[in-house]
Amino acid sequence: MKVIVDLCVVPIGVGTSVSSYVAACSDVIEKAGLSSKLHAYGTNIEGDWDDVMAAVKRCHEVVHDMGAPRISTTLRVGTRTDRTQTMEDKVRSVEAKR
Amino acid sequence: MKVIVDLCVVPIGVGTSVSSYVAACSDVIEKAGLSSKLHAYGTNIEGDWDDVMAAVKRCHEVVHDMGAPRISTTLRVGTRTDRTQTMEDKVRSVEAKR
Amino acid sequence: MKVIVDLCVVPIGVGTSVSSYVAACSDVIEKAGLSSKLHAYGTNIEGDWDDVMAAVKRCHEVVHDMGAPRISTTLRVGTRTDRTQTMEDKVRSVEAKR
Amino acid sequence: MKVIVDLCVVPIGVGTSVSSYVAACSDVIEKAGLSSKLHAYGTNIEGDWDDVMAAVKRCHEVVHDMGAPRISTTLRVGTRTDRTQTMEDKVRSVEAKR
Repeated sequence: MKVIVDLCVVPIGVGTSVSSYVAACSDVIEKAGLSSKLHAYGTNIEGDWDDVMAAVKRCHEVVHDMGAPRISTTLRVGTRTDRTQTMEDKVRSVEAKR
Repeated sequence: MKVIVDLCVVPIGVGTSVSSYVAACSDVIEKAGLSSKLHAYGTNIEGDWDDVMAAVKRCHEVVHDMGAPRISTTLRVGTRTDRTQTMEDKVRSVEAKR
Repeated sequence: MKVIVDLCVVPIGVGTSVSSYVAACSDVIEKAGLSSKLHAYGTNIEGDWDDVMAAVKRCHEVVHDMGAPRISTTLRVGTRTDRTQTMEDKVRSVEAKR
Repeated sequence: MKVIVDLCVVPIGVGTSVSSYVAACSDVIEKAGLSSKLHAYGTNIEGDWDDVMAAVKRCHEVVHDMGAPRISTTLRVGTRTDRTQTMEDKVRSVEAKR
């Protein structure tokens, strides 16, 4: 099952600057060989369900290992069986309607 | 790794009534033997990361099998390494401060 | 416009215990006279759009005033024009399908 | 109070293609004079709290007017009092750590 997710990892208990933790998650996603795109409030990721969710789990492990005692992540998770659609398709599809 | 999630599965392309799909997800979670609690805009689930995420994947599979061509799910995912905390602990902890 | 939201306020930069901030938000919502129900990963609130959103804003103001320098909130926001539906209706509707 | 949000509007009961509704929301945000950036699973918006939230409400009104009987939106809402930070600052801050 193919999935497009939007991931936002929020480490708690490590002060107000969280960018180094988000950067570590970007590394995790890249090493997993997944297509992704960072934006100002999360990261779009696309791939096979199991690969994407394994990367999300690895993000939690890595952020805890970096010293964050608590993490509150939000995920949007999109799947469809009617057709295949990439992250780029979704953006292009909206822009074409404007 | 222990996790508490809040899951909200939104089937798209099956009309406005989504309760039968949410009920099917409740069955999936129960059959997985996970602690959970339904509320008006999602379901709290607690358990081992892999067990909880396997149930979330199974929800997508079941909802697609029921005929939904598209699903947009939102998940909040909480982990902590400083101490163990159940869903009930979290609610009690807030109520004790009021 | 009537709305049902699910609100989860995460204060950042104040350590790992966030329950006193969540309790303060519960007070804000109650003082606003809104129907609400706390769960383990957020709070369901129902009411008129403007009243609910004013309470959400007030939560941010109060949590900042308590000393949190940064807040990352997640909201699910549901509206419908086909019929009226309360928070209790939503839960009952799912349970009736099981 | 300055806010950065990530908005994802999901119309329910109008079939599987939702891009025209998302495009209409992009128009609403642009007409409101707000800085924003569309991505594959939502839209980043920055501005004054009241202006941004008025645009979110207007999106619901417009999408209902287009015929969607039900909408389930997710919002991430970030505020901070320690310093000002734009959407571009957030992305740059993460990329600088990699």
